[in-house]
This record gives sequence, structure tokens and C-alpha cells, in this order.
Amino acid sequence: MTDDITAPRRRAGPLAAPGRIKDISSAANPIVKDIRALAQKRHRDETGLFLVEGLKLVLDGLDAGWELGTLVVSKAALLGGSEVLTRAVSRAVASGADVIEASAKVLEAIARRDNPQSAIGVFRRQLVPLAKIALAPGEVAVALDRVRDPGNLGTILRTADAVGAKAVVLVGDCVDPFSLETVRATMGSIFSVPVVRAKEAEFLAWRQDFAGQIVGTHMAGTLDYRTPDYAAATLLFMGNEQAGLSAEMAGTCDLLVRIPQAGRADSLNLAVATGVMLFEARRKALTL
Amino acid sequence: MTDDITAPRRRAGPLAAPGRIKDISSAANPIVKDIRALAQKRHRDETGLFLVEGLKLVLDGLDAGWELGTLVVSKAALLGGSEVLTRAVSRAVASGADVIEASAKVLEAIARRDNPQSAIGVFRRQLVPLAKIALAPGEVAVALDRVRDPGNLGTILRTADAVGAKAVVLVGDCVDPFSLETVRATMGSIFSVPVVRAKEAEFLAWRQDFAGQIVGTHMAGTLDYRTPDYAAATLLFMGNEQAGLSAEMAGTCDLLVRIPQAGRADSLNLAVATGVMLFEARRKALTL
Repeated sequence: MTDDITAPRRRAGPLAAPGRIKDISSAANPIVKDIRALAQKRHRDETGLFLVEGLKLVLDGLDAGWELGTLVVSKAALLGGSEVLTRAVSRAVASGADVIEASAKVLEAIARRDNPQSAIGVFRRQLVPLAKIALAPGEVAVALDRVRDPGNLGTILRTADAVGAKAVVLVGDCVDPFSLETVRATMGSIFSVPVVRAKEAEFLAWRQDFAGQIVGTHMAGTLDYRTPDYAAATLLFMGNEQAGLSAEMAGTCDLLVRIPQAGRADSLNLAVATGVMLFEARRKALTL
Repeated sequence: MTDDITAPRRRAGPLAAPGRIKDISSAANPIVKDIRALAQKRHRDETGLFLVEGLKLVLDGLDAGWELGTLVVSKAALLGGSEVLTRAVSRAVASGADVIEASAKVLEAIARRDNPQSAIGVFRRQLVPLAKIALAPGEVAVALDRVRDPGNLGTILRTADAVGAKAVVLVGDCVDPFSLETVRATMGSIFSVPVVRAKEAEFLAWRQDFAGQIVGTHMAGTLDYRTPDYAAATLLFMGNEQAGLSAEMAGTCDLLVRIPQAGRADSLNLAVATGVMLFEARRKALTL
């Protein structure tokens, strides 16, 4: 697995070597095959690269300073005179990215969507080491115990961004934050919120030195989620979609809270529950 | 379109005529084809029927008193001695439903999932007329303006159930609440929360006589979502995923509120935003 945590960032901007432009019309081209392979986690892990669909998201990534390796654009749209696409190509080349002017067939092959995008970016992923995560009083971050659903994770990253959370920590065997579906659901927040991956043991060790409070959401929590004072640095800890927090992870929390529910027990979607918790923790901090 | 709003409910329980049991092993059987066709909205509209996957959800529907037309169960699981499945079959037959003991091929053909369920129910849908919706002080309901994403709608129904909301009103051209994906995302709440479909004009007419307040969530809202007093009967009005509330629908609101966001503008997923609003409106009412 590429050690993308410490990978040096390529210099972007005027000092970077400009990228090359290629014309590819066959979906069987080996470069296209390599890019398509990034739909699989194994290939993302091996290369440290991931796919970003749509021009808006690609520009979000460039704006955030993430390294764009390859930009695949619709040749037809370029020839059609698309100004935004032409500008994006110039920007990508200047940043050192290769650009592929692709046929509709190639774009469809990569994106596998009914409605293929006019631009697809191959970015180098960024993960932040757990040791770098420190929270000041009033700040909040989210930890997730074995989150399984890519859409849930993407939506949680999006919400974390919206409330200014400092990080999303993936504890244990979580779904890949750089899958197509997760990246899509983040709506660009993948580039804004630091993402950490940590094994359980690593998390438990880090937790010893964490100065703030860990507030877990748990069916067995006896505290109402509106009760804690979130003025301290707060790590919200949310459990797996089916099983909730494991006993070990629940045991490491300072507080276990529950969100009261009028209907059937445990009936909240994980992304919704995380949203409710995040807005509660930031209730006194967020202003219009 | 079947007028399922006023369709008489078949008598269930000991007085109902018991259903028949059929054995079907071919996916080409016309009954199987009719059931499969319910994956399409047109066929659901024509028949007033919809699909429910999984034994747990089917039992939720029976518990809630919804009319089960046909129960498709895995013949292999029955022969294997599954007690829960055997009990479900007896219960279905007693309620007047037909039961199909199906081969794995038939179940896969209907469910189209990697991991087919051992039970699939064909239920008669229930919609509630808008005229029936009345809220007492302190009660809350949700209206959605042109919601497009089936997963969002299902998650919103699930959250509405969790906070005890009295109804979900679908205004204008919304996604079908009885699609497979929506029903799946409700996790059974489709059977608990009254669902209303209303054209814009119908909604505007009903609104004249509505005694409570309509609180819309809107990018241009000048009021913080934590400011209103939700002690009055409250209809929360949420807009389309891309466009938000239309000008006309925003214009019919008593208050327009905004959820403050620290990150990029308008970065909340619709189901998360609805969850935050619902928990805010029920903040003083919900107790552990």
C-alpha cells in the first residue's frame, strides 16, 4: 500500500513541470484501463489514487490544493467551445497534471453512469495521521466505528464540513473514504475535511493522551444528547450501522449519550444521527 | 391510476377468506412477471401495489395492519425448517394473502439484489388525503417540495417516524414513496408515517385553512433555525435537493429559516437538514 500519509506533495503552480495532453478514443487503451481500475479499492490502495467525477468537484480539488494526476475531459465538449472546460484544462496542465482528451466511449467506460460527466479527475489521496489530530476547547471532530455504507460516510464528511468539524476519524474496518460513491456523496467536502484511518489499538493508544472528551452515541446511553456541555474539545463517536459502538469502543468513551426517539427503537439513519449530534455539539458556536 | 386513497381495506384476521399457496420455480411464470413489474412506477400506479423486501419489513407491514396481497417465500428455507418463515406464511394465509413458495431463481428475479431475501411481500399502498392532515399545538409534520432522491425520501420517512412526526407531505413532482429503494431506506417506517401526495395548487388551497405555522428552510432565510417557537402546530417545509424551495412555495411559508453552516454554502444533504430541523422542532417535546 502506498504510504500516502507521508508522500511528498508535488509542487504545483508556475514552478511545476507542465503536464502532457493526450488524445484517447478507445476504451481499451491501457491508460484508460488503469484509470477504470481505480473503481476497485485494491487499486486505489496500491496506487494511492482515486477518481473524482464532474468538473465542479475536480475544480474543488484543485482549489483545495490536492494533487491532480490526470484530468480526463470530453473532447467533444472541448471542440464545442466549452470555456469552463478549456480553462480547467489549462489549469490542470499548469499544475503538472496530464490531460486526456477522451471520446464519449472512454468517458462512459470510466464513469459507468447513465449520464457521464464531461470531466473526471484522478487525484492523489490524502490521509492525516491520528497523531496530528488535536482539538482546542469548543472544537469538535467525529470518529466512526466500522462505518459500512459509502453513502453514509460521504454524507457524514459533508456534514462535518458544514459545521466546521476538525476531522473524521475512521476506526477499525471502515468503508473506503475514496470510493466513487463516498466521494460523490461528499459533494466536494472530501477535499476539506481531514480524514484519518486508525486501527482500534492505535485509537485506544491515542485516546490516552487526548485532552478532550469522547462522547459516544449508544442505545444504552443514559444521558440525553442535549445534556453534555460541549464547551470542551469534543470527539463524537458514532457506531456501526447495524451493531452500534462495540463494547470496547463504548468503554473508551467519557460519556455515552442517547438521542431520544418517539417511534421504534434505534430508528435513525447513521448520517442523520451524526448530523443531529454535530449540530448539537456546535449549537452554541454556529451563528448565521 | 388506482384510487388507493379510498380503496376499501380487505378484512383481515379470522374472518378473512384464507389465501392460497402456490409453488413456483420458473422466473418466466406470469405471476412472477407481474410482481417483477412492480419495480416500475407505472405498474405500481396502475395496480396500487408495491414490493417490500425482507421478512422483518413484511412483518412490520402486517403488524401495522397493511394489506398483504402476496407473500413470496424461499421454498428452500421453508423446507429447511425456518420457524419464523413458517409462522409468517401461516399469518399471511390467515390474513387472506396468497403465498408463493419460490425457487432461488424466482426470488433473485424479483429482488435483483446480490443477496436475495428469503421473503418478499406485495402490499397495497396507502396514501392519506391532504384534507385529513391536521396538527395539534406542539405537533410537527414535514412537507417536501419536489424531492428527487429515493434514498433521501426513505431516510426522511425514517426520521419523521423517529421523532413522532404526524405526516410527510409530498408536494408537486416528488419521487415515488413506494419505490424499492425508498421503502428499503425507511427501514419499516413506510408503514408508520402517513404519506400524502399533493399537487402545488392543492397544497396552496389546503394551506389557507391550516391553523399552524409553516416553517420553510431556505438559503435566503434570515431567521436562525433555533429562533422560532415550535410550540404551535408546525409544518416544516424542505426544498428540492438542487434548487431548494421554489419561489412560490417559499412565499407560502410563515417563516423562512436557515441552518447556519461553517463550511461551503448549502452543503447539507437534504435528509440530514430535515433531521436537524425535525429534532429542533421537537427539542422540547422529546424525552429519553
